[in-house]
Amino acid sequence: MEITLGELAARFGAEVHGDANCVVRRVASLERAQEGDISFLSNPRFRRHLTSTHASAVILDREMLADCVVNALISRDPYVTYAHVASLLHPPLAMEAGIHASAVIGEHCILADDVAIAAHATLGRGVRLARGVIIGAGCVLGDGVEIGEGGRLAPNVTVHAGVRIGQRVIIHSGAVIGGEGFGFANERGVWIKIAQIGSVIIGDDVDIGSNTTIDRGALGDTVIEDGVKLDNQVQIAHNVKIGAHTAIAGCTGVAGSTSIGERCAIGGGVGISGHLEIVDDVQVTGTTFVSQSIREKGVYSSGTPFEPVAAWRRNFVRMRQLDDMAKRLHELEQEFGRMRAQREQGQNK
Amino acid sequence: MEITLGELAARFGAEVHGDANCVVRRVASLERAQEGDISFLSNPRFRRHLTSTHASAVILDREMLADCVVNALISRDPYVTYAHVASLLHPPLAMEAGIHASAVIGEHCILADDVAIAAHATLGRGVRLARGVIIGAGCVLGDGVEIGEGGRLAPNVTVHAGVRIGQRVIIHSGAVIGGEGFGFANERGVWIKIAQIGSVIIGDDVDIGSNTTIDRGALGDTVIEDGVKLDNQVQIAHNVKIGAHTAIAGCTGVAGSTSIGERCAIGGGVGISGHLEIVDDVQVTGTTFVSQSIREKGVYSSGTPFEPVAAWRRNFVRMRQLDDMAKRLHELEQEFGRMRAQREQGQNK
Amino acid sequence: MEITLGELAARFGAEVHGDANCVVRRVASLERAQEGDISFLSNPRFRRHLTSTHASAVILDREMLADCVVNALISRDPYVTYAHVASLLHPPLAMEAGIHASAVIGEHCILADDVAIAAHATLGRGVRLARGVIIGAGCVLGDGVEIGEGGRLAPNVTVHAGVRIGQRVIIHSGAVIGGEGFGFANERGVWIKIAQIGSVIIGDDVDIGSNTTIDRGALGDTVIEDGVKLDNQVQIAHNVKIGAHTAIAGCTGVAGSTSIGERCAIGGGVGISGHLEIVDDVQVTGTTFVSQSIREKGVYSSGTPFEPVAAWRRNFVRMRQLDDMAKRLHELEQEFGRMRAQREQGQNK
Repeated sequence: MEITLGELAARFGAEVHGDANCVVRRVASLERAQEGDISFLSNPRFRRHLTSTHASAVILDREMLADCVVNALISRDPYVTYAHVASLLHPPLAMEAGIHASAVIGEHCILADDVAIAAHATLGRGVRLARGVIIGAGCVLGDGVEIGEGGRLAPNVTVHAGVRIGQRVIIHSGAVIGGEGFGFANERGVWIKIAQIGSVIIGDDVDIGSNTTIDRGALGDTVIEDGVKLDNQVQIAHNVKIGAHTAIAGCTGVAGSTSIGERCAIGGGVGISGHLEIVDDVQVTGTTFVSQSIREKGVYSSGTPFEPVAAWRRNFVRMRQLDDMAKRLHELEQEFGRMRAQREQGQNK
Repeated sequence: MEITLGELAARFGAEVHGDANCVVRRVASLERAQEGDISFLSNPRFRRHLTSTHASAVILDREMLADCVVNALISRDPYVTYAHVASLLHPPLAMEAGIHASAVIGEHCILADDVAIAAHATLGRGVRLARGVIIGAGCVLGDGVEIGEGGRLAPNVTVHAGVRIGQRVIIHSGAVIGGEGFGFANERGVWIKIAQIGSVIIGDDVDIGSNTTIDRGALGDTVIEDGVKLDNQVQIAHNVKIGAHTAIAGCTGVAGSTSIGERCAIGGGVGISGHLEIVDDVQVTGTTFVSQSIREKGVYSSGTPFEPVAAWRRNFVRMRQLDDMAKRLHELEQEFGRMRAQREQGQNK
Repeated sequence: MEITLGELAARFGAEVHGDANCVVRRVASLERAQEGDISFLSNPRFRRHLTSTHASAVILDREMLADCVVNALISRDPYVTYAHVASLLHPPLAMEAGIHASAVIGEHCILADDVAIAAHATLGRGVRLARGVIIGAGCVLGDGVEIGEGGRLAPNVTVHAGVRIGQRVIIHSGAVIGGEGFGFANERGVWIKIAQIGSVIIGDDVDIGSNTTIDRGALGDTVIEDGVKLDNQVQIAHNVKIGAHTAIAGCTGVAGSTSIGERCAIGGGVGISGHLEIVDDVQVTGTTFVSQSIREKGVYSSGTPFEPVAAWRRNFVRMRQLDDMAKRLHELEQEFGRMRAQREQGQNK
């Protein structure tokens, strides 16, 4: 794949500064780029690399143009333009259409002509795969699973019976979609399993990271709307709903029946309790514990600062005394107020 | 599967109010239920749905009966009765007995006549599977693994050599049982591996969630007792012991050699340090860090409240000053006490 | 395998006290050891077991010798000597060299004569496996993966295209190496995928735990240096660098582009933000949130103590008032100072 700056500009609504016939073949960082590479500058912190880069061209904002010693592709949002250029020059590895001889396909499956199913994949009965779907080696799809056009499952993904997946969804290795939710009733100290008879419904353009787990609903479905992006090792419990275009970073867990709005950005290592509602456009910073519903958009955080261990131990002990400290402070304020009042009375006599 | 209310009442010790011949086929929520569905009410918050439900019958407590416009199955613990009814009407997907042609079975395995082993499963040497065991597609069982009656492994589970599993155990996809524990000795800055020669012993009626990991013991075994329920992405390190009927929610990690008692309920995202003892009947709320043994039953928590980020930043800074604040408060109390004493002395003169 | 104490002493630089011809076959704990077993004492807390052990020999420090009633192998660092002895007596399960008939091997692979590839493994094109490499059942290796001498992949590991792995690396089940990093640009509320065109480079003698995930770089590579040990369910994001001989315990996540130094010890459940630098020889205790770079070696911690829930709730509320409390304390100090100054002025008149 090679393309001229002029073609890139036309395709992505950018403007060429320099040689529109300059050909680029790969993307690279400003520091490592060589001839034939196109780089980008979105963070002004790295501006100094502009003057020394060996890239054939750089995607940048007009304001950075003065420092650029090579061809430029001027964009209002250089990172977005870079995303488009990188996808064009480095498309995902294609897999030839066809079903590997070792794959096991159940009865009554409906598979588009051009699907690619790799070695040792196992499809249950009645699976439906639309055009362009790729199923990696070792994947297991339960009965009745449906995957929309252009879906791509990396190796060793498990999708349980009845899960419905939209178009252009990418699921990374080790992810488990539609496992049974964690539902039990306690009968005199013994846990009785609650049948998990809902499913998982995944919209279009969703990305699901490696070893992420999404449980099926108990009654009703777990729902992941269009454009949601889940990083690795995210845990989504039964009957959770995640609104369109929300992104969740790695190692975050969302407990059962919680509903997260659209366009939220949830950091890594966050814990979100069950049965909560989080409105649209909420940001939650990394490792926050969300124990109550969030009713207003904004940025939310919890947690304590890290410190050298000796300082932390001293402060740690005080946290257990915090309520006591607050009461003593209040009492001192009261006493002090009374004393001052007495003094003023005395002086006024 | 269909059954009358009268039969359900007899089977599960409940009482019918209304038509004992009413036939039900599925469970559903009060809001979504239609004819032929049986629903339940366990949380009084949803009482209002009783008056508008289209369910054929509702499982409920006698006190809720007045609001119920349809047939009722009266139970002292409606959620437990619902659990039993749902399991009866929605049994886990059966797999036909038999060994798929693509499965690989090692020498000297002892398999009951009715086991079901799916495509691309791999069994090592000397594996023993009791009656009714189901092994999902892509599962790998090491040499000498034993699984008791009615065990069910979802696809892509890995069970390492020598692990012993009781009856009716369910293991969800991506779980890894019996991996090598994280044991190293440090020799002049270089980590030397400690051979992990113990195993994992799992009791009866244990559930293990998707992508959960349970390491084998270093010396001696990691032990999961009867009735334990582990959610997804739980990490159990080597030589941990988990007492009977304890439940652990998702994303929780338990470090090596810690012993957790019976009937404990550990929330999600909890971290439990190594070499601790936690007694029976302890509850730990979500995202708590348990850094010391717990010697008395009760409910335990840690962590800070989440807040809008600006407020959090202000409080965050103060946490590093907490010990200093505590000392200053103490000093102020002392000084104030001295001043008051002087004043009183002065007044008494 | 059996060996005399004399041979062990010669091999590992220890000294025999007692019968150098004593033969040992297995390792065991002091409490459970029987004839033929060799045990060890590294933690003085367990010294009392020395007097009652049935072990044939014990590895210990010279200072503990007085209490030992059986043969001893005297070592300056008994735990390290134990590690060596245990590895010798309990080598990892060997797999016979050879490629299982069900394994699928792509074109142009270069495999050493003695590699062992288990059932249902899938290798892409151009994979290179050096001498002694073992690939477990169900593993999937993408195109061009390279694994150095003595590498051992447990079952169901996924290694994506182009990943390069050094010598004697152990990767446990369910681990995913080289998945696509979590990189997106936001274009008017919609996430646009950033192609992840870097790779993962893993040094020699690295251990990677079950269900751990290591993403490939966006531009440039994710790098895991020699001797690094990663526990289960660790998440390493794109372009992270982990320095030689650093160990990271379970459930810890490291966000993108962070660089961790050599010989660090990171506890379990730790969250480390992206784009940070952590110098060599840093220790971070369990569940700490590392939100800024660490420039000096030392031990670092964060978090709050766990408490009975009622006490925690009282303190929890106060954390939101902490900045307010700090200001009120300061004000009280100021007022008190002014009052004292006035009094002293008054007395001096």
